Amino acid sequence: MNKKGLDAAALSIRSLSMDAIQKAKSGHPGMPLGCAELGAALYGELLNHNPEHPTWINRDRFVLSAGHASMLVYSLLHLCGYDLSLEDIKNFRQLGSKCPGHPEVGVTAGVDASTGPLGQGISMAVGMAMAETMLAAKFNTANHKIIDHYTYAICGEGCLMEGISHEMGSLAGHLKLGKLIVYYDQNEVSIDGPTNITFTEDIGKRFESYGWQVLKGSMYNYDDIFNLTEKAKANTEQPTLIMLKSEIGHGAPLVAGKSSAHGAPIGEEGVKEAKKFLGLNPDEYFYVSPDAYKYFADQKARWTSNYNNWKADFDAWAKENPELKKEFDAAMEDKPIAPIEGLPTYTTADKLATRVASGNAMQAIAKAYPQLVGGSADLEGSNGCKLKSEGYYGPDNRSGRNIHFGIREFAMAAACNGMLLHGGLRTFCATFMIFADYMKSAIRLGAMMNLPSIYVFTHDSIYVGEDGPTHQPIETLNSLRTIPGVQVLRPGDAEETTEAWKMAVETTDHPVCLILGRQGLGVYEKADSDWKNTIKCGAYIAKDCSGTPDITILATGSEVSLSIDAAKLGEAKGKKIRVVSVLDRELFESQDDVLQAKIIGGAKRVMTIEAGIRSGWEVFATNKNDIISIDRFGVSAPANKAGEFFGFTPEKIAERF
Amino acid sequence: MNKKGLDAAALSIRSLSMDAIQKAKSGHPGMPLGCAELGAALYGELLNHNPEHPTWINRDRFVLSAGHASMLVYSLLHLCGYDLSLEDIKNFRQLGSKCPGHPEVGVTAGVDASTGPLGQGISMAVGMAMAETMLAAKFNTANHKIIDHYTYAICGEGCLMEGISHEMGSLAGHLKLGKLIVYYDQNEVSIDGPTNITFTEDIGKRFESYGWQVLKGSMYNYDDIFNLTEKAKANTEQPTLIMLKSEIGHGAPLVAGKSSAHGAPIGEEGVKEAKKFLGLNPDEYFYVSPDAYKYFADQKARWTSNYNNWKADFDAWAKENPELKKEFDAAMEDKPIAPIEGLPTYTTADKLATRVASGNAMQAIAKAYPQLVGGSADLEGSNGCKLKSEGYYGPDNRSGRNIHFGIREFAMAAACNGMLLHGGLRTFCATFMIFADYMKSAIRLGAMMNLPSIYVFTHDSIYVGEDGPTHQPIETLNSLRTIPGVQVLRPGDAEETTEAWKMAVETTDHPVCLILGRQGLGVYEKADSDWKNTIKCGAYIAKDCSGTPDITILATGSEVSLSIDAAKLGEAKGKKIRVVSVLDRELFESQDDVLQAKIIGGAKRVMTIEAGIRSGWEVFATNKNDIISIDRFGVSAPANKAGEFFGFTPEKIAERF
Repeated sequence: MNKKGLDAAALSIRSLSMDAIQKAKSGHPGMPLGCAELGAALYGELLNHNPEHPTWINRDRFVLSAGHASMLVYSLLHLCGYDLSLEDIKNFRQLGSKCPGHPEVGVTAGVDASTGPLGQGISMAVGMAMAETMLAAKFNTANHKIIDHYTYAICGEGCLMEGISHEMGSLAGHLKLGKLIVYYDQNEVSIDGPTNITFTEDIGKRFESYGWQVLKGSMYNYDDIFNLTEKAKANTEQPTLIMLKSEIGHGAPLVAGKSSAHGAPIGEEGVKEAKKFLGLNPDEYFYVSPDAYKYFADQKARWTSNYNNWKADFDAWAKENPELKKEFDAAMEDKPIAPIEGLPTYTTADKLATRVASGNAMQAIAKAYPQLVGGSADLEGSNGCKLKSEGYYGPDNRSGRNIHFGIREFAMAAACNGMLLHGGLRTFCATFMIFADYMKSAIRLGAMMNLPSIYVFTHDSIYVGEDGPTHQPIETLNSLRTIPGVQVLRPGDAEETTEAWKMAVETTDHPVCLILGRQGLGVYEKADSDWKNTIKCGAYIAKDCSGTPDITILATGSEVSLSIDAAKLGEAKGKKIRVVSVLDRELFESQDDVLQAKIIGGAKRVMTIEAGIRSGWEVFATNKNDIISIDRFGVSAPANKAGEFFGFTPEKIAERF
Repeated sequence: MNKKGLDAAALSIRSLSMDAIQKAKSGHPGMPLGCAELGAALYGELLNHNPEHPTWINRDRFVLSAGHASMLVYSLLHLCGYDLSLEDIKNFRQLGSKCPGHPEVGVTAGVDASTGPLGQGISMAVGMAMAETMLAAKFNTANHKIIDHYTYAICGEGCLMEGISHEMGSLAGHLKLGKLIVYYDQNEVSIDGPTNITFTEDIGKRFESYGWQVLKGSMYNYDDIFNLTEKAKANTEQPTLIMLKSEIGHGAPLVAGKSSAHGAPIGEEGVKEAKKFLGLNPDEYFYVSPDAYKYFADQKARWTSNYNNWKADFDAWAKENPELKKEFDAAMEDKPIAPIEGLPTYTTADKLATRVASGNAMQAIAKAYPQLVGGSADLEGSNGCKLKSEGYYGPDNRSGRNIHFGIREFAMAAACNGMLLHGGLRTFCATFMIFADYMKSAIRLGAMMNLPSIYVFTHDSIYVGEDGPTHQPIETLNSLRTIPGVQVLRPGDAEETTEAWKMAVETTDHPVCLILGRQGLGVYEKADSDWKNTIKCGAYIAKDCSGTPDITILATGSEVSLSIDAAKLGEAKGKKIRVVSVLDRELFESQDDVLQAKIIGGAKRVMTIEAGIRSGWEVFATNKNDIISIDRFGVSAPANKAGEFFGFTPEKIAERF
């Protein structure tokens, strides 16, 4: 341990953080100041990383779960020699800066996850640690360990108060993620005051109850940091929580230990006082100790040799294992290893729920995409999402591709985000659609990070039936559609479900929600013979009429076959009716007018039908009354009775023609 | 203890549950069968309740957190003599039944909370237990304890896996809610199999870490149930978790102990086998043991005398404390004790954030509504939601009206639902608007229960500024608007904020979200001199022009003053521009065409502007390009720079005229 170098680094973190926040007139100094020593120790000694290869697949991962402490990371990335200049730091929190208010993956080299919404960082870290075990099991050989790294995270009380910290803690303990190490910055202060005003649980005991190793020490004792981290690494059977007693705003006497240190600049006077206290020139700004630069420069040889040794090993592995290497490359690029084969085929004699069709499609897709892993929040059978020829992931089987996430929807979604951030895997996760509400924030964060999570949401409407309004999505579909970057596909029959799955798995830059029904649905003949191609624009003509339609019905999901049945009744009354299956409303809406008009077919009247709220259909419907929707909570009744109650029958719809 | 009576009751619960679920071909037999003895003990002996007074304010509350076990409760309500006939039970899960799939408050007398979404029931129970302490502190006197009851809940592994169970456990432990008693039906089976496939934490130890008393026993030993409950009641300093080892589907040999017992009918054969096993006639359906009816009939005298004693005491209290009685009545009816006085007034010289104006309005409103209690999820200062003349609620001060909920958004919302269900209180809860995502499911459940929660959501748009995209709502506003029954108000200045608060507190049958900004906003002159009245329709004319407007701009929140500034630029170019402040878009949309037309004023062109997604504005805007919106994630930058980036400046808007 080079105490002088570490101290210089910690001093520089404090100096840069205070000045950057003061200059921006905005930010969170408390934690960068309070955790400076830990940051220095991590980036200087503990992390196996390489600033020249920030996306190195075998680097140790680091997640700042308390994302508001972003200046801690920016300071360190700069000191280490990542692509982040002092000028960038001076630009903290300004438009277009490499140093945004909270860390953003993709914006700043060396940032492994976007964080800020509390509790999600540690949960993404769980996903990263899971990914490490999976890739290690798949790719390492007796001679070569090409995947072998730790996942580190720092969190504060905020993350640990959030409910998701329970889900992630319980899951990680069960999974015995021995290479997950979480530091808890125990400053016992939050925004409203000392945490004892509301948070008096025994955190260590809680994490022990989850099966974690819990270690305790001081933030300001390097021996503690290093020794406890060693102990954490030595324990391969348990994740470790290292509780480090600390002081918020440490080093800034006017705010240290106070909640005022948390989320606002210290003030010019406070910064000057802090600089004096730290032995710095109070009139010098953005000071970096030359010893700090030197300290990190001195690490470079080790970083380079670590990386080069790994690279040599990797190359040898690649040479010895050409098949594995092919799979590895496909996984890293998120491509199939072979064309998708053996997709299910259906005839119009078939009747099955789209959730069942989804399960059928997955089996074939999973063979072409061996990187695809996932599972359900305790609804595997109902969601129909088991990869049948694969085992279950767990502490004794890191090769399993099916994951029992437990009834932990939020952590499930966040862990999948973590697995995707890690790289080398593709994920799906499943639950009843109504419980998308429990994971909303993680879906959003995944979209912001451009992660191609696949969400398998079944039981998508009042056709859930007897379970009643608490379990029947009404506004959920639209709620998902409105998240920027989230693609929502609601197929109408088994064949469309297969195409939807293909679209989902071929998507690499945003989340896709597959919205699937509980109830059996017929497979319909498609009027558009090229529908598998047309559907890529979001919609296609499922049923047509001769000549210009009097009415075109835009429908999604289970309402497509309903509309076809209604259209047949309308035809008997002499109406010309076209039915368009709208797999992806937003995608269809984004098409140019010509294409939209072609599919709508110049109908005098456009009706829409979807078993959910009307919002968004105004764009297409001729008038308000032509939107058939459900704008209230559902009812507990058998699915067909619920449908009748809401007027979702061919007869009731045909009355409107 | 009357073992014979209890056994007969348990037997009848099993019989009714199996048959009702079998007849409905849908339902969850596992838990009603597994918990029958506990149900019998609760309704027969432990609960202080009275079937003739199902809404008695001093009844013990009971929450079936595992709402899927609804037949347990329906069986018991029937046996006890609540308004629930055998015919109702035969109608389980049918349209319009008093026995919906999951318990629904308001549908079934004797049901204290709608449950089903896991983890929320126990969290609502926390709110009920909090409410009891608050009302007891406020209304009880040395001579009379008119509020003095317990809150009981039953949960399973599902509730305890959910993240919210951590938030509620940690909060309840901190608050020392000694009269909260939660039974954990420890059957160790969930839908995907035995819980040990993913859930191996030490639950008892976890709850001890929260400061709970944890007791263990057997579900099938009445002595355990009664003795442990006694012990729970004796401990006035800690909430208690009573872990009862049980068997899912107990009494039905074909499914007992298996996950197949959880969520599907046992099957005709299975029911017959169970009846034989239980000593019942396999060919008799909906059997109720006469001993069970007798057992509950025998309780009636006790129930009546308990209620009558309380009533006599209550009447004496009312006579002795007329002022308190007045306050009590107002609280129970959710009315003000006096007209709201001392509301803040502003002039056009004022500039302040609507979050600050909200805090100002609250002070006056809280005086008129002494039942109003609430707090923030660790953002009290930022949300501006402190009741300044009131103290903090806590284990040592049950009279405090400010609550430190901690960083536990989901439990906060659920606990508020619980307090409202309890009655006698009105609640507000506050956080950054983006974290509405963490509590979405509780907002929805509150709306379904018609509870008038007030949500104070501040930091409502990209004007959050530097904290960046993770903290900037984009789709959140619309996500809230689309929940059935949720009213969303986004005031444009300090004066409108006061009116919004009045509308919120005068609402008694649905949740209201107050959407408030972080940034300072000018107070504008209102063109409509009767605006305080007009705004009750959802919108009013904030700025007018002479004659028919060329353009009417519909704007919400901070975009109203922005539009007024833009309109002034437009006027300079000779355009006639009207600006309408849309406080509540859905309410305005629901008005008849005449009123809408009057406010829009026959403008040839209608533009809309809101710093969020476009969805829903299509209804009003003349065409797509007249919707000024933000349809992507935000940016980290000072608020004004973020505004400029998205074209939200008077100049950029005026360019469109």
